[in-house]
Amino acid sequence: MATVGQVITCKAAVAWEANKPLVIEEVQVAPPQAGEVRIKILFTALCHTDAYTWSGKDPEGLFPCILGHEAAGIVESVGEGVTEVQPGDHVIPCYQAECRECKFCKSGKTNLCGKVRAATGVGVMMNDRKSRFSINGKPIYHFMGTSTFSQYTVVHDVSVAKIDPKAPLEKVCLLGCGVPTGLGAVWNTAKVEAGSIVAIFGLGTVGLAVAEGAKTAGASRIIGIDIDSKKFDRAKNFGVTEFINPKDHDKPIQQVIVDLTDGGVDYSFECIGNVSVMRSALECCHKGWGTSVIVGVAASGQEISTRPFQLVTGRVWKGTAFGGFKSRSQVPWLVDKYMNKEIKVDEYVTHSLMLGEINKAFDLMHEGDCLRCVLEMRT
Amino acid sequence: MATVGQVITCKAAVAWEANKPLVIEEVQVAPPQAGEVRIKILFTALCHTDAYTWSGKDPEGLFPCILGHEAAGIVESVGEGVTEVQPGDHVIPCYQAECRECKFCKSGKTNLCGKVRAATGVGVMMNDRKSRFSINGKPIYHFMGTSTFSQYTVVHDVSVAKIDPKAPLEKVCLLGCGVPTGLGAVWNTAKVEAGSIVAIFGLGTVGLAVAEGAKTAGASRIIGIDIDSKKFDRAKNFGVTEFINPKDHDKPIQQVIVDLTDGGVDYSFECIGNVSVMRSALECCHKGWGTSVIVGVAASGQEISTRPFQLVTGRVWKGTAFGGFKSRSQVPWLVDKYMNKEIKVDEYVTHSLMLGEINKAFDLMHEGDCLRCVLEMRT
Repeated sequence: MATVGQVITCKAAVAWEANKPLVIEEVQVAPPQAGEVRIKILFTALCHTDAYTWSGKDPEGLFPCILGHEAAGIVESVGEGVTEVQPGDHVIPCYQAECRECKFCKSGKTNLCGKVRAATGVGVMMNDRKSRFSINGKPIYHFMGTSTFSQYTVVHDVSVAKIDPKAPLEKVCLLGCGVPTGLGAVWNTAKVEAGSIVAIFGLGTVGLAVAEGAKTAGASRIIGIDIDSKKFDRAKNFGVTEFINPKDHDKPIQQVIVDLTDGGVDYSFECIGNVSVMRSALECCHKGWGTSVIVGVAASGQEISTRPFQLVTGRVWKGTAFGGFKSRSQVPWLVDKYMNKEIKVDEYVTHSLMLGEINKAFDLMHEGDCLRCVLEMRT
Repeated sequence: MATVGQVITCKAAVAWEANKPLVIEEVQVAPPQAGEVRIKILFTALCHTDAYTWSGKDPEGLFPCILGHEAAGIVESVGEGVTEVQPGDHVIPCYQAECRECKFCKSGKTNLCGKVRAATGVGVMMNDRKSRFSINGKPIYHFMGTSTFSQYTVVHDVSVAKIDPKAPLEKVCLLGCGVPTGLGAVWNTAKVEAGSIVAIFGLGTVGLAVAEGAKTAGASRIIGIDIDSKKFDRAKNFGVTEFINPKDHDKPIQQVIVDLTDGGVDYSFECIGNVSVMRSALECCHKGWGTSVIVGVAASGQEISTRPFQLVTGRVWKGTAFGGFKSRSQVPWLVDKYMNKEIKVDEYVTHSLMLGEINKAFDLMHEGDCLRCVLEMRT
């Protein structure tokens, strides 16, 4: 392609500072260096982590930056030494890398590859510790190693999942974050067995993906908990069998659930990011074996608490990141499962807008009926 | 025996009220009712849970009562319907029952049998919700379903482990609590694998049993943490390979351990009952897979805390009670392992006294060189 080796000037939504509307700018995207891949992003969705960093509450947030981490696109060019993808490949950028070489990847116990984290955590690329994005020479930070709110982005090769080219990118972009996080929390982290009773706190995209995961795992009861009762109807389609609105009860919600389930649930999932709900999620678990998985991301500095007796009497407290999925290995597998109609994706896309409408898309996230808003990369 | 069906009058150490010296009294021990077993206690050890309830800090503590839960003896008589033990059997009373019938026992996931808890939790027997102990007609509460600080006690049949009659009761009494708690925390709850790095907070009886369990599991490094450096020499004999005294460091102890272990330990065990140490124990675990097990019992009302990020990045927080061992099934197996010299027991007995010296034995518990003080039931 004519662009190979060249700086590409394209449109991107730039977060110049916290909590100020994003601005569509012309940005310069440098060519990929060794071990890097430049991707033409075709569709990106928004996720709450984008909104969290944008809000300024993330102490590690760096500005100006290009947010976005749930997307799909096509490889434009690759840097030196990149062998696993080539121009034209359909790909999903993965904020959780998988190098297959580091202590974490080799452990067989976690998906938390550490290879590029030192760079992605501070908004730069490993090779020269610099950004590939700039505007008239002023560097713009990367975000989560993905920065998908740009028509072109540069990512590390260990952060690229090559997928079936027949998959519709406007749908499977969702397999870059929220849906795998929920499914994997059930399948990989909790390992829910058939017949289990499951509680899900928060019925957004992640919570609904947990419900779907629990349903496919054969859970006998899937209890959804949300303060917006309107969410129940939609949640039924994802597998939720019972609904509880904490506002309808005077007792602590964990007590309500314990009473409803003859002692508590087998597995619970916190999909909100609220530390007080995380406690409820643990304490609604059955004595002796109940396992609670923290899926939501809490605001910086907040802490979870409980009485140690809760753990000494057999409950287990865990968490999950990207649902425990190994990104490069398993995102393509999830795409295949979607193509085989074994998992839902389309049903999470409630809104479609263009990149130029991204601020409207952020507003939509706070509305109860919005699950995922997918942006086409036009302005 | 002449005593069958009769009230037995014998000596017991009675806790009349919190934090006051125990008093050796003549107590009347009623015959066992249906499903009950009367045991002649020959040896009892003291454990920190006895001291905790005695101190008055346990809000569920009831007075007057007969404490004690780590002991061994011989069945004197059995009540109606008791088939699994008979007079003359050598037994260890188990504060954690195992009925093999309840939801918990049948789950295959926990040792926390619920059959008699409603009675043992309030100091009485299931059959008539009354105590079998009295002094001149005044009832004295049971404690933990065992009350072994008495020459005779009455327990539920689901709380009696029948053991090899050749086993020395003055040693194997320790298999009623502390030693199994530590071994089981490693073998059953954490499931430590060969090659693991292990941290143990607190090098008392339970912590040393954790070390022994970790050694037999093939741990490569066993790091003992205690504020009393004198404990290290003894701890080496139980498997501890490295020692850290938090007082020797300015940095938080979890950071010291993370630095020493290239990112943290695979498994940690809190064997003190201090909620702040419980946090350190979690946070010294390796990202991605480190598992922390709470073994110590914290004071009532205290809470554990951490940032949820600790769990989201792959650490697991658990707890254990009686090391996850099924008491009636597995205590006899532990006795056999001791008889086959596969586990230590003798090495934990640092002091031997008589029942009449029990207040001195409580004092000894607070001295660093005392692990277990075993009382012969003479006054």
